[in-house]
Formats: sequence, structure tokens, C-alpha cells
Amino acid sequence: MLVVMRHEATKQQVEDAVKRIKEMGLSPHPMPGPTRTAIGITGNTGAVDSRQLELLPGVLELIRVTKAYKLASREMHPDDTSIEIGETTIGPGNFTLICGPCSVENEDMILRTADVLMQHGVRIMRAGAFKPRSSPYSFQGMGEEGLRLLEKARDATGIKIATEVMDNDNVDVAEEIADVLQVGTRNMQNFSLLRRCGRARKPILLKRGMSATLDEWLMAAEYIMAGGNYRVILCERGVRTFADHTRNTLDLSIVPPVKQLSHLPILVDPSHGTGRRDYVPPMALAGMAAGAHGLLMEVHPTPERALSDGAQSLNFGQLTELIGQIQRLAEPLDLSVN
Amino acid sequence: MLVVMRHEATKQQVEDAVKRIKEMGLSPHPMPGPTRTAIGITGNTGAVDSRQLELLPGVLELIRVTKAYKLASREMHPDDTSIEIGETTIGPGNFTLICGPCSVENEDMILRTADVLMQHGVRIMRAGAFKPRSSPYSFQGMGEEGLRLLEKARDATGIKIATEVMDNDNVDVAEEIADVLQVGTRNMQNFSLLRRCGRARKPILLKRGMSATLDEWLMAAEYIMAGGNYRVILCERGVRTFADHTRNTLDLSIVPPVKQLSHLPILVDPSHGTGRRDYVPPMALAGMAAGAHGLLMEVHPTPERALSDGAQSLNFGQLTELIGQIQRLAEPLDLSVN
Amino acid sequence: MLVVMRHEATKQQVEDAVKRIKEMGLSPHPMPGPTRTAIGITGNTGAVDSRQLELLPGVLELIRVTKAYKLASREMHPDDTSIEIGETTIGPGNFTLICGPCSVENEDMILRTADVLMQHGVRIMRAGAFKPRSSPYSFQGMGEEGLRLLEKARDATGIKIATEVMDNDNVDVAEEIADVLQVGTRNMQNFSLLRRCGRARKPILLKRGMSATLDEWLMAAEYIMAGGNYRVILCERGVRTFADHTRNTLDLSIVPPVKQLSHLPILVDPSHGTGRRDYVPPMALAGMAAGAHGLLMEVHPTPERALSDGAQSLNFGQLTELIGQIQRLAEPLDLSVN
Amino acid sequence: MLVVMRHEATKQQVEDAVKRIKEMGLSPHPMPGPTRTAIGITGNTGAVDSRQLELLPGVLELIRVTKAYKLASREMHPDDTSIEIGETTIGPGNFTLICGPCSVENEDMILRTADVLMQHGVRIMRAGAFKPRSSPYSFQGMGEEGLRLLEKARDATGIKIATEVMDNDNVDVAEEIADVLQVGTRNMQNFSLLRRCGRARKPILLKRGMSATLDEWLMAAEYIMAGGNYRVILCERGVRTFADHTRNTLDLSIVPPVKQLSHLPILVDPSHGTGRRDYVPPMALAGMAAGAHGLLMEVHPTPERALSDGAQSLNFGQLTELIGQIQRLAEPLDLSVN
Repeated sequence: MLVVMRHEATKQQVEDAVKRIKEMGLSPHPMPGPTRTAIGITGNTGAVDSRQLELLPGVLELIRVTKAYKLASREMHPDDTSIEIGETTIGPGNFTLICGPCSVENEDMILRTADVLMQHGVRIMRAGAFKPRSSPYSFQGMGEEGLRLLEKARDATGIKIATEVMDNDNVDVAEEIADVLQVGTRNMQNFSLLRRCGRARKPILLKRGMSATLDEWLMAAEYIMAGGNYRVILCERGVRTFADHTRNTLDLSIVPPVKQLSHLPILVDPSHGTGRRDYVPPMALAGMAAGAHGLLMEVHPTPERALSDGAQSLNFGQLTELIGQIQRLAEPLDLSVN
Repeated sequence: MLVVMRHEATKQQVEDAVKRIKEMGLSPHPMPGPTRTAIGITGNTGAVDSRQLELLPGVLELIRVTKAYKLASREMHPDDTSIEIGETTIGPGNFTLICGPCSVENEDMILRTADVLMQHGVRIMRAGAFKPRSSPYSFQGMGEEGLRLLEKARDATGIKIATEVMDNDNVDVAEEIADVLQVGTRNMQNFSLLRRCGRARKPILLKRGMSATLDEWLMAAEYIMAGGNYRVILCERGVRTFADHTRNTLDLSIVPPVKQLSHLPILVDPSHGTGRRDYVPPMALAGMAAGAHGLLMEVHPTPERALSDGAQSLNFGQLTELIGQIQRLAEPLDLSVN
Repeated sequence: MLVVMRHEATKQQVEDAVKRIKEMGLSPHPMPGPTRTAIGITGNTGAVDSRQLELLPGVLELIRVTKAYKLASREMHPDDTSIEIGETTIGPGNFTLICGPCSVENEDMILRTADVLMQHGVRIMRAGAFKPRSSPYSFQGMGEEGLRLLEKARDATGIKIATEVMDNDNVDVAEEIADVLQVGTRNMQNFSLLRRCGRARKPILLKRGMSATLDEWLMAAEYIMAGGNYRVILCERGVRTFADHTRNTLDLSIVPPVKQLSHLPILVDPSHGTGRRDYVPPMALAGMAAGAHGLLMEVHPTPERALSDGAQSLNFGQLTELIGQIQRLAEPLDLSVN
Repeated sequence: MLVVMRHEATKQQVEDAVKRIKEMGLSPHPMPGPTRTAIGITGNTGAVDSRQLELLPGVLELIRVTKAYKLASREMHPDDTSIEIGETTIGPGNFTLICGPCSVENEDMILRTADVLMQHGVRIMRAGAFKPRSSPYSFQGMGEEGLRLLEKARDATGIKIATEVMDNDNVDVAEEIADVLQVGTRNMQNFSLLRRCGRARKPILLKRGMSATLDEWLMAAEYIMAGGNYRVILCERGVRTFADHTRNTLDLSIVPPVKQLSHLPILVDPSHGTGRRDYVPPMALAGMAAGAHGLLMEVHPTPERALSDGAQSLNFGQLTELIGQIQRLAEPLDLSVN
């Protein structure tokens, strides 16, 4: 952390700042420069509200080093984390596909989808029983009945199940049934839910918040890990910007820094990232080339009849074609698709 | 809603689109133009997932009119809503101040603050017992004990209490004690919490999400109102942009459109909006001039020792001075400060 | 400037970084901390490309203090700058209105507007002869003929003229005629134009770029000032964000930091900031309360027939009403409207 | 275009809007719906300032279809455009590398770079003689002397030259020497420069503006094409968002829509897009997989000593390695690297 003093700050003001830093239990390192003095700060800066220093007379600016996550950090845990879900492993060397419809709509469509996915070698199906919808008047998902249909699909085909949870009650029910619990973009800083996920017995798929910085995202993972659940899978799904050519702006450039700063695996969701079925294949391949450990994609038997997100869902034919492309790209990238 | 066909779309493609729109239970209105055909759509477009139309052959673009909120809309409810909290009324003609510390820290500071606020004519105190913090290692609030201290402060001074709720359990407890329940920016689309607030017996102060559009914000209000709780107070608190000179970008220009599109009252929070104590007074006055119905501001007996958000809290002397300026501005703006 | 080393950086890597910093002509100040070492840097950091340090082995992050502007900075020039334009002074204590149509359209409308503005006490008229338009097929302005009409309006009424310049040739012509040269948002980092403005004999009204940070904006002012023209007036006109309820997001919260960091005067443009006539009055008053030194506003005799930007132009009746409100607000804010 | 009337709009207001639309030379198509009336508009809407319609009484909103570009549009020119630069062709089926240092620094480094690039099969070198720098105190490029060194490098090695132009004078000089003229991100809406480029005899590499929408970008290309120069190459280089983990946010998801809406080739610049050398290789491969026609990348003999942008430049060893990866990816993507 660095306190930058104003050009015209007095010697007394610098001394007062040094004194206040010591009072906060931190170590000040004053550095007089040609135009101003800066004061470096070391110590456990996470424990105090350092923003107070901005208020001291003579202070121009406080510059913080905000890497406060520990468990999620590669510095504390240098080796990559791999997460097993059934016989599939999400982590380095593998490229994992998690596909399925936005929502569970009925038994037939979910069984049929599970079946087709398994035929394509996709071992984890995503589908929502509890749906976060912007409007209270939109289809809100089938709830627990949806979970039971997902269970049926797993029993029938062996496919593993990833499903979204929106509150603590959802977690209570879903952790009995699902294999992966998903925390959606709107709940990335629902700290109450994150804490509950920290006590869940299943891996958590943590989507990036719609306007979350990398630090905030890893801090959200830290919340889960601090509760004892170390099995966190990150998923980039597009952020909110001024750009209007896609539903969100898929920020693939977060993949390399995440892999540098954290040991957790990271997936990419080109369906929500683009919002349009025809943009999904190129962005899926781009996510793969950028270094992601897998993809989360919406697939539906009849996207043009889907109750939600049909516009961004692939149909089975499109999935077949895309998986072919993924397979071809896997070789030069030294990845094993699973 | 408008479906824009491509320049080179065939007559058959236009007819197919018209047919599909009818199948969705909507009325198509084809409009052939010099370079392309557009198809206007009327009917209850909120009931179907219209994004599917984007996928039809020959379609260039789907342009939606997204005003799906009803109860929050001025079209359905032309008169302004005023919300009474004790003897204070939030609504047109009034300018309401809600002040207090970021967190309840101990009995002494909260009683002292309540006392000083009442002396200044501030009739509602805000203070957090349950705190959403980016880091799991930061101070997380005093919880229920904090609520009891707030109750004590009300008993002692008569000041009304506004406090944040983060999950359904919080609401169960807080609605017994607090006079206003606040939903924070990170929970604006926590639909489970919004639904619970719709059944709460207290008014809800709904902060704008960090990257929420006006439509999404009013839809979040709609969630609460659809549950039967019509007492929703909106609060702009800054959004996330590229700008780095303030903690968030306080978007005062949302005040006029909110007042045009909705009948709900809207406050401004210059403390979170700017993140710096010295920027709070000018932005508080600016919010007032922009037409807000009041302010939410952080005030602390000793900001430089606060456990959270001290950098953006006013001390009592600064509050006195600012209230003086607010009083002087109230006259030409025809407002009554309460 | 601060180089933050990785947790696992070796002693040798720290020493190498220290050595490299010295080679760059700067002074390193190593600060060993409990989890990592940081190295403070002092010296003339603006003269070297310090981003190179990010590449050194063991370096986690480089944190820069980017206040590289000098002439625009209050640190080098503590007193506020006031700029005289005819008998009007833009600067502290005054609140200056600069109004007029988006474009010069013909002699009649520009003379009529000048006349009405003078009657309202507005002493500077803005109007574009050279127009930056997103489409090459839109009206591009009347060019030099437009300038001559502006000159005529000044001769007839005494009103001073502010007009936009888009390239060096425009400056050559416009500096002979206009009283203020405006650099538009799309040209804020057109460094060639900024350098030419630095040699111009007229004050420069420098609009903030559509996604410019405060630092970049003051650096653009610095370009002009470094050329010898110290008469720079800043103008906030809205920035680009995800928000879609206004044409741009008017960032009034930049007014207090600009006044704190720079001695230059700052105006607000609520017309471009909102893009809608009905939002202009509240945001004009908000800009005034936020501390701006004046307003730039679009006014047109018949906005509904304007060749450009009619939707955001006030008609004369609306101007009269708004100036009345501005006058009433001026008293409690201790401002003199001119 | 669609005019959406308010719920409570009177029959007279709808008729008045219809009448005004006709006066503007356009065709209105009223569509009464269950809750409100909308009026579709056809005709040459680009010719009038349709935003005026927003001001009519009873109008809620004006929704525009903003595809105003023609020459840049695939609708008017269905076949892909390929652009020849020497023996290299930028366009479908090829993947073109344009590499080189940020700035020409001296004869030795530019000759050495040209030589190494040719050895690697890179046939176009980028290097700046005129440099847009945020600070007037930073290195501003070698100017015309730099151009002459670039010419020398071409004479010695046969490599083609791409270089940035910042104003009309630059174009006059550079079009005599360079093979491709680059318009930088800060000048994407410098319409004066775009018009000059429309008369230039060389292809134009048009970088996307820092906060440009897809429409604005294609409209900037339209400016150049409307002047008669059809050889425009687009280049995505990252946009400005809240995200701080990379220098800009590289928006690869603009590649598929650009290819769908326009026939012009599009490159990706992972150097400026990320700002960090270690993130360049994964994002270069991602851009390739997303469907770009090539890459613009910074390469420097000794990045750690570069006068500008060293942090994002690859050294020769890193370039060799990356080109190997690009070659391996080219096969499954059916691309020929040139």
C-alpha cells in the first residue's frame, strides 16, 4: 500500500501520517522524492480499513494493493487444482464440456438431452430448476420437481448434474441431488449464499459477476473456500459494458490472469457471453485457445421453442458440429476433451 | 417490438416470420420499406421468449421495447407515491435525510449518533448490523446484537431505523425491529430476497445494482411489489464504469427518467457514490437539484476510527455545515427538508 | 510508483529489480513485508517507460501514480484560473452560460438566437460551423460560411462566439473569427490538434473524451498548455457506460476532483450529457450545485426542425424558465450568473 | 424505426405523430396494441434527424435501427473483401501477421527487426514514426526521419510497412512511403483524418475506438470508403471498461458480428488489447480461433529497453514460439498463415 502526499504537504503532515499508520498496527516506509513524499506501508493491511488514510491532511491519494485472497491464490497454493466430478476431471490438460438447456422444462426434453449429450461424450449436464429471471412475470423454473427430473436423467444415463442455487434453501435441497452447484452472476456477491456454499458437500461453479473485477471474483471464491469447501470452479460469462453487439462482453482476456493468480480451474460460457447461437461456436473455440479448462454451453432439443434463452442455445446438430471442431483443436493445444 | 429483416431476405422468409409471430400468440404488422422489411409486433410480448425470433432465417435484428414493469410504472399508477416512516414522509415536496454510520459498532457510538441526528432534524438513521463485505476477513457486522442496539437508540431518541438485509433470515429478524429494510446494490437481483421483501411488513429501500439498467432496477422493484409490498423507495448509489476518480460513478442523470417512468420516490447516496468525504457535500447538493426526494449519507462520530467506510463518512461538524447548505437550497427548489 | 513482488520472489529477484530501477535513473526503496516485498520508487518517473518493470522475474504488479500533468495541476499553480471572454469571466464566483444551436443553419436563425440570448443575459453563443457527425451522410455543417454568419451575429449583437474546430485548418480560420475554440469529445486525444491549439490565440474549451479518465483529460489540457496557451476551459459532457436511459452518462462527480486537482475552470454540458430536452433543466441545476463554473447548453428557435441535435435543444421559452431557476439557485450558492 | 407512444397517449397525439412523420418525408405505420400504440416508420430515415420525434407529446420512446453504413455493409456487398499488400493477401482463408516495434527508435533496431520478421515469414512490419502519447512529455516518435528508416528497412529486406498517421500532414508524407496507413484508436472519429484517408492511395488499417460501438466503427470505415478508398482493414484492439486486469478489454466477440455485417477483413491486436507480454500468446491464439483474419502484434529486439510499450512487446524468442503455435492451429482452422 502506498500513501501519496501532496506536493505542498508539510513535514508535520508527513509525520502525522506516519504516526497514524503505526497506530493502525502497520509499518510506514517514508520515501521523499523530488516533487512529493510517498509512504510505503507493509503489514497486515487487510485487517484495517485503510481507506481512512485518504482523509489525513496533506494526503493526495491512497494506492492499495488489493490481493486480499489467500486460499484462492496461487501464491499460497502453487499447484493447479483439479476437481473430479464423477469420472470427469476439470483441470489442466483436460477440456471439459458442460452442456444442457437453460431450464428443465419437462421430463421428455431433459431425458432426451441427457441421452444425446452422453452420446457426444459430454459427461456433465447443466439445467436450471431454480431460475433467476429479470421479470417476476417470466417462467421461474420448475423448482424441486425440476431437480427430480434431473435425478431421473442421471439415473437413466449416468450423466452428472450441474444446477443453479439462488438461496440457502435451494442449497439444502440441491446438494442432496446435484453433482455441481452453480452460483449465478447476479449472486456472485450474495455473501450469505457464498457462506452456505462453503459448507456444501458439492463442488461450486462460481460465475463471474456482471461487473466484477478479478479481485472481487477471487474474493467471492475465497468466501466459499474460507468455509471449508475448496472445490470451486470459476466461469467467465461476459460482463456488462457499453458494447451492444453481443448480450454481454465475453472477457476472455481474464483467463490468462486468473490462471496466473489462482490455482482454481476456469471455464468459459459463450452462450451467455454472446447471447446469440451463431456466435457461440467461434467464441467457444476462442475460449479454448485462450486457455480455459472447459466450456459451459446451452443446448436444447428445439431452441426455437425453448421457454428461456432459446436464442443462445445450440440444437443437437450444431452441437455435433462444434464438438467436431473442438476435437480438431484439442490436438495442437495438447488437450484431452472430456 | 420490431423484427428487422435483412436487405436480402426473401418474400418467403418474411412470410415465415409473420407465421411464427402468430404462432406465438402475437400480432405481426409487416412494413415493407425501400431497403428492407420490418415487422411490428403487438400483443402481450412479455409472456413469450421473443428472443427466439432472432434466429429465424432472414432476420437481421430484433428490437424490443422492454418496459415490462407494471406496478412500478407511472403508466399504471400516474400519481406519485409517498411513503410514511413515522412522522416523516418520503415523496414529492419533501427532501428526506437518512443518515448514520456504515455499521453499528457499539452502543455508545450508535446512541450518540442518533442523538446528534435528531438534534439536526434527521428523523431516520441508517446503520448496518448485517454487512456485505468483499472480503470474508473484513468486519462482518454485529448481527442481531447490532439490531438490538438500534432498537435501543430508537427507544432513547425516537429516531426511526433503516438497516440492510442480506438474506431471508435477516428479513425475519429485521422486520420485527427496523422501520425500513434496505436491499443493497449486490443483492438488487437476488430474486429470492426480493420475493421475501415483497411479503415484509416494512418499506423497502432498494439500491440500484452496480451495473443495473433503469429497466432492471424497476423490474427489481416490480418483484417486491408483485408480492404485495408497494412501499418501495429507490436509491441511486453510483454505478461501475471505467472512471477511477471516484469509488463509483454517481449517475444523477437517472433521477429525471425514474421520476418520469415511475411513481416511486428516489433517493441519492453521495457517500457510496463518491467514496470520499470531501466530495459528499457537492454531490449531495447536486442530487437535490437533480430532483431526488432525499439523501442517504454516512455520518460517523469519528470517521477516522470507523470500522468500515470511514473515508466516505461525514463527521458531525461536516453534517451541520451540509444541512445548512441543504436548508438554503430548499427554498428556491420549493422543498421541505425532513 | 510501487513495484509489488510476488510472495515467492527470491532475494536475487528483488535485488535485480532494485538494480534495474537504478539503471533507469530512479531511486528504489525496498520494503520487506510479512508476505511479500514491495519496492517504492521515487525520481522523475515520467521520463521513462516504467511499464517495463512489470516484465521482471518475480514482479507481481506495478502500481503507478499517474499524475504526470504539471501546468494543469493545482500543485504547481495553487490559485484558480479565471478566463476572460469579452466582458465575461469564467472562473470562481461566476456561473457562465454558453448557449446556442448545435449547428449554424442559416443567417436568420443564428441572428435571432444571438438576439434572444443577449436579452437573457447570455454573453457567449456556441454554434457549430464544422460538425463532427458519426455518419458521412449527415449534415456536416456550413463550414467557413457558417463562421461568417457567426461573425455577423457578433457584429449585430455583441455576443461572443464559441465554435468547434476539428483539424489544424479549422483552427487557422476559426482563430481569426471566434472568441473561444472548442475541441470536441472525439478529438480530446487528437494530439496534433491539441498542439495546434497550444499555439492558438484564443481560449480553448476542451470537452472530456467519451471514455477519458480524469488523468487523461488533464493531460490533454497539458498538451495545450505546454504549447503556451494557458487559457483552457474544461467541459464535462457525459461519458460512455452501459447505461441506456440517457444518451451519455453525465459524470457530475468529476467536478469536485477536477477542482481539487486543477486550477482550470470546468463547465457542464447537460444537453449532450442527457440527449433529451426534458432532462436538461434538472441536470443543469445539478451541475450548478455540484460546483461547475457554468453550463454549455443547446438552444434552438425551433428544436423540432433543427438539422441536428434537436431532441436535446431547449426552445426559447424553456430557456427563459431555466434561467429563472438558475438565478434563484445562484443566491444560496453565492454565484453571480453571467 | 419505431415510435412507441405512452399508454395514456390520446388519439389526437397519435394522429399528430403520424402527421409529423409524413412531413419528414417518411411513411408511418400505426400499430395499435393492447396497452399502447407503436408507429413503425419506413423510408430513408438516415436523411432526417429523427431524434426530434422523441419530443412529440405522447411519445414514450423512439427506437432506431441504426445500420446507416452502406459501403461497409455486407448487405450491399455480399462477398468478402480481400486486400493485397505486396504478395500478402489479407482476407478469408489467410491469417496474416503484422508485427514490429511500437516506435522506430533507431536504424539498427528497425533493420534487425525487419530481418528477423522476414525470417519468420512475417511480410508486413508495423512501427510508429508519429506517436500518439497521452503525455506531451513522453517520446513522440522520430517523425519523418522514422519513415525514412522504415523505407530503408523495406529496401533492405523487402518487408512491407504499416505505420500510423495522426493528421492530414502525416498522410501526405506517409502515403509516399508506407504500404499501409494506420488510424489509431484515439482518431477513429477524427472525421477530418478519415476523409483524408478516403483520398489516400494506400490501404487503411482502422483501429476500433476505445469506446466505439460496432455501428460507429463501421461508420468510420464508411467515411473512408465514401471518399473512394475501399481498402479498409479493421482491427480490434481492446475497449475501455471497468475491468482492471488487462490494460484494455480485448473484445474478441466483435469478430463474428463484424464478419456477419461487413465484408471487410478484421485483425486483432492482442498487444494493446492486454498490455502484457505474457498474455499476448493466449489471446493471439484466441483471436485466431474467433475467426480474425490476422494479428497486429508488438515485437521488439529488447522489450525491456523499449522507448514505449515494452511491457506488451514480445522478444524474438517469444515470437518464434508463438508463430509455431499459430502454425499448429492453422491446420484444424483451415487457415494459411502469411
